[in-house]
Amino acid sequence: MIVVIHAHPYPRRSRACRALVGAIADFPGLELRTLYDLYPDFDIDIAAEQEALARAQLIVWLHPFYWYSVPGMLKHWFDKVLERGWAYGTGGHALSGKHCLWVPTVGGDEDTYADDRANLRPFAQYVDPLEQTARYCSMNWEPPFVVFGAQQKDDAALAADAHRLRARLIAFASERGWTTPAAGRDAANA
Amino acid sequence: MIVVIHAHPYPRRSRACRALVGAIADFPGLELRTLYDLYPDFDIDIAAEQEALARAQLIVWLHPFYWYSVPGMLKHWFDKVLERGWAYGTGGHALSGKHCLWVPTVGGDEDTYADDRANLRPFAQYVDPLEQTARYCSMNWEPPFVVFGAQQKDDAALAADAHRLRARLIAFASERGWTTPAAGRDAANA
Repeated sequence: MIVVIHAHPYPRRSRACRALVGAIADFPGLELRTLYDLYPDFDIDIAAEQEALARAQLIVWLHPFYWYSVPGMLKHWFDKVLERGWAYGTGGHALSGKHCLWVPTVGGDEDTYADDRANLRPFAQYVDPLEQTARYCSMNWEPPFVVFGAQQKDDAALAADAHRLRARLIAFASERGWTTPAAGRDAANA
Repeated sequence: MIVVIHAHPYPRRSRACRALVGAIADFPGLELRTLYDLYPDFDIDIAAEQEALARAQLIVWLHPFYWYSVPGMLKHWFDKVLERGWAYGTGGHALSGKHCLWVPTVGGDEDTYADDRANLRPFAQYVDPLEQTARYCSMNWEPPFVVFGAQQKDDAALAADAHRLRARLIAFASERGWTTPAAGRDAANA
């Protein structure tokens, strides 16, 4: 019911994404698809990806924020999987009405995203391409779950973020009457 | 002196990018790097790419506009080639002061990029991630050369666009006292 598209090119260096994934991986009905493991040569199985998305009601894009966007693999996934006639265009209704939750982990602090700071613009101005990708496929764009300062945060702070993400999924699931797990599992394993 | 990073995943289907590349490929001192040919398995030679960029004064990113951004390969190229300590961050000055010209070919017409149209926002709102990628590497962001309506345009219209791109490069080169070719070569071959 939930499909998590997880794209981190350097899993051993990943702290924030790993904490987030660890906190939600046992969620009932959640399918985790770790793209860089599945497709080390970028040869994406389009049919398998589309079948997974077709099963989902909530699609999560979880990745580090690189160059103001998704990692190359996830962009390649957009290009290959979100096909005309399937995801959009004539006859392309496969994702219509599904929910899309964007979960980027951002190395810098939120206050570096401002006109006079290193990242030059408010973070919201970098969201448009992602949001519009989801909307063009007739998905419902959920308020993004953004982890700022991922490079500086210690493990406890990242565990707190991961707990918030789990709570967010629990709220989403319980609103729809799905089976939900205990909220605290991630804290025990953090 | 000019390095063109060309990223089209389906060269046989490419009409607009092919016209543009065809009109500039003979430019004196121009190096064309066709990423999907060079790296069919996405295994980018970072050193070779960085050496090419180091030689350039003008770096051109030429590609179809997919999902409001660059194709997956070019995003992967950003992730791999624009390294911390080389392109930005401490000691990362390799691209400082170089010029960056973004050349996307956009399937839809410009008027589809509006609040009440299919692409929901003015095109300018999708430019920020690209522009800021260049600026973060201390490059000079040139006014982008955008080809709209690439899917609908006939060969003559695309040839005219290609001619304008060639003229743009000639102007850039002549301002700097470089050798420039005749303006008309592309028209003869269109």
